[in-house]
Amino acid sequence: MKTFNKVIASSVIAGLFLSSLPTASPLQTKTAEAAATCKASSKPKNFIFMIGDGMGPSFNSAYRYMQDKPQTKELDKVSFDSYLLGGQRTIAEDDHQNITDSASAATAMSAGVKTYNNAIAVDNDKTPVKTVLEQAKTVDKSTGLVATSEVTHATPAAYGAHDESRKNMPAIADDYFDEMIKGQHKVDIILGGGKDYFKRDDRNLIKEFKNDGYKYVNNKKGLLKAASNSKDKQILGLFSPGGMPKMIDRDANMPSLKQMTSTAIKKLSKDKDGFFLMVEGSQIDWAGHANDVTGAMSEMRDFDLAFQEAIKFAKTDCNTLVIATADHSTGGLSMGARGEYNFLVEPIKQMKHTPEYLRAQMMKDGADIDKIIKDNIGFELTADEVKAIKDAVTSKKAAAIEDAIERPVDTRSFTGWTTGGHTGEDVNVYGYGPGSDLWRGNMDNTDNAKRIFKFLK
Amino acid sequence: MKTFNKVIASSVIAGLFLSSLPTASPLQTKTAEAAATCKASSKPKNFIFMIGDGMGPSFNSAYRYMQDKPQTKELDKVSFDSYLLGGQRTIAEDDHQNITDSASAATAMSAGVKTYNNAIAVDNDKTPVKTVLEQAKTVDKSTGLVATSEVTHATPAAYGAHDESRKNMPAIADDYFDEMIKGQHKVDIILGGGKDYFKRDDRNLIKEFKNDGYKYVNNKKGLLKAASNSKDKQILGLFSPGGMPKMIDRDANMPSLKQMTSTAIKKLSKDKDGFFLMVEGSQIDWAGHANDVTGAMSEMRDFDLAFQEAIKFAKTDCNTLVIATADHSTGGLSMGARGEYNFLVEPIKQMKHTPEYLRAQMMKDGADIDKIIKDNIGFELTADEVKAIKDAVTSKKAAAIEDAIERPVDTRSFTGWTTGGHTGEDVNVYGYGPGSDLWRGNMDNTDNAKRIFKFLK
Repeated sequence: MKTFNKVIASSVIAGLFLSSLPTASPLQTKTAEAAATCKASSKPKNFIFMIGDGMGPSFNSAYRYMQDKPQTKELDKVSFDSYLLGGQRTIAEDDHQNITDSASAATAMSAGVKTYNNAIAVDNDKTPVKTVLEQAKTVDKSTGLVATSEVTHATPAAYGAHDESRKNMPAIADDYFDEMIKGQHKVDIILGGGKDYFKRDDRNLIKEFKNDGYKYVNNKKGLLKAASNSKDKQILGLFSPGGMPKMIDRDANMPSLKQMTSTAIKKLSKDKDGFFLMVEGSQIDWAGHANDVTGAMSEMRDFDLAFQEAIKFAKTDCNTLVIATADHSTGGLSMGARGEYNFLVEPIKQMKHTPEYLRAQMMKDGADIDKIIKDNIGFELTADEVKAIKDAVTSKKAAAIEDAIERPVDTRSFTGWTTGGHTGEDVNVYGYGPGSDLWRGNMDNTDNAKRIFKFLK
Repeated sequence: MKTFNKVIASSVIAGLFLSSLPTASPLQTKTAEAAATCKASSKPKNFIFMIGDGMGPSFNSAYRYMQDKPQTKELDKVSFDSYLLGGQRTIAEDDHQNITDSASAATAMSAGVKTYNNAIAVDNDKTPVKTVLEQAKTVDKSTGLVATSEVTHATPAAYGAHDESRKNMPAIADDYFDEMIKGQHKVDIILGGGKDYFKRDDRNLIKEFKNDGYKYVNNKKGLLKAASNSKDKQILGLFSPGGMPKMIDRDANMPSLKQMTSTAIKKLSKDKDGFFLMVEGSQIDWAGHANDVTGAMSEMRDFDLAFQEAIKFAKTDCNTLVIATADHSTGGLSMGARGEYNFLVEPIKQMKHTPEYLRAQMMKDGADIDKIIKDNIGFELTADEVKAIKDAVTSKKAAAIEDAIERPVDTRSFTGWTTGGHTGEDVNVYGYGPGSDLWRGNMDNTDNAKRIFKFLK
């Protein structure tokens, strides 16, 4: 007997996500074989620390429904499921807020220090605290920061910079260049969005990095070329002025998180002393803030594929610890809402772009709203829903337009939200490789750094 | 530097929950010592399977904030935190719903079979399926069912009965008596609510159980007396006509889940062949359905204390596997709501009873609403909030009254809800004892039964 969602799924057009994705089985088989060749080792040489920003437990579970193959009877597992180690507590130590922001949580994970919201690797007295990335560089490992937000955004910043406020993104970009360790720039591979914070009126950090030997790239082609050119050892890749587009909205010039991760691993793993790499799936959180389940599931997919890439490397390398977790949850996402005992993913799969992307299209002069809807929303909207979108476009209020596009998806999928901010529940911890057993059970977010520091002595 | 919630907490009247509770430390120290004396054993003799009905991950995290001691700087851990093993998938196999109900989930956990919502230990063809409790009895172990709902409610029923519908509670009570295994009643200890389903116009099962040698008790005093009387080997304890009152609403005649669990363990552990005991914290779910955070936290406490009792026994016995998990989450609970980065537990602690209890008081003839509010709600309501309660009382609509009492708590604590039904995210799995390592990682709910069956061969 098939479940309801599977019955629906098999009767509709192949889903947006499923149709474009390889099945997990070949990789899993391959990596399982590789794993059999790894010998037990208690101390990792390489570290890949992955953060799904805003990836609370509901996002992990919702993503599994998204990836489920309609033709199989059981709910299929996703890659993360084979690596669940436990959960972590995320509470901030802030005078006014007990639910963490990304800066405070990232500082806990990067430096082992509880601090106030907005803090970038500084403690509650605003004194800089050493991060695991800095310690890795101190012990001669190569280092990297990869994100789909501005690479100067809170999470990567808390690994490679120090600032009393996450808002100071130009100063954070400066830190990446100016704060040298043993006479070297502390981050060897910097990939993500945020070009505007590097090339500014007052300073051109792109030029400065290039002068110091970094290869600069600004699109997928350039990234992949640098990846295969052995002369390019350090890379600065900035692919958009601010945050990168979400996976579902990217064009052919834009690399995926998987491609950035793969490139970083390729370069960093040349170092015989090992490496520390932080990879952030930045925009799960942004979609959560926007209460946009389409965007959230797009970014979960982007993060999952990067995670699989990291695991694949770790299983052949055998000296790499991979940890994947979140900093907090966002939006109060629930699978099932308003009394309904269903989370139906088809409406989510039938969206060709995020509401954010469609809003931008709709706000262009002379935009044909009906055509944009017809071309991008794969289910029938009611007359009221179409009117709500058109009224919002007339109002020219971006948030209202996105909201009017999102609500029909929530209504049909039974997706629930409680907030435009963060929520305080524990987040999942996944991992693989030497040392990963330490991450089993329930832990505090500061334990991530404390454990990694021990390995980096 | 103290967190905001701690600063608030230390400046108000000692919280309802914290003030009446022992600290966890003495027990933890004691049990840790006991644990040191246990030798490794791969096969458990005794099984205590505990289900927090509706206890999704947000409930576990929220409960930790509730139990945090204001005088300590860090967020204190709760008992569960030392035993986190992983998470389980809960999807039902139902033609119309992919989010499980308690009956389907309990059947998955009791029999290892995915089935439709409402099914009590029957498969999708309505054929009865053997449960781990029945298998335990088959291999000569003693057995018990403990719940704070009717003991004929979906979760316990799926361990000790078979029915095409959870609604048939009289037939479920009949099963407990009529379905013999090796000439014996299959459940030796039956404790909970639901007297109305045992003593009916058509049949008096209380009399029948007594005639067959069961000790019948109907209040705390009777239970504790039976617990210490070695002649009382089998017990039927029914403490209320329907579900028992929630912990925070109980009077002195009503046993706690801890006392019922303790009594069950005391009796069952006399069996040299071992035992299987299912304990349900039934009403975490009911509070979730009602979107009542006060009731939810009350029932989390009740379940926690019963869990600690089970762990204490397991750590001295050394042959007992304890698993504590949930069947699903309920209500779409979030810590933090409406954009606020806080989950403030003081308003929850300042409630002396659940909204359900207060509603019953308010609906009595001549009730003094202002006095009931003043005596039971420890924070100041706005004039609008008082008016909303009074208007609801005038309307005589129970749900509206409870809602009017709950909303001020949600508003001040920043508690969010998305549904009056269940939600589909994975639930946490906790455990201790021989065999518990098998529960590590992410698993399907059917794996619970499959693993226990292997131990019961």
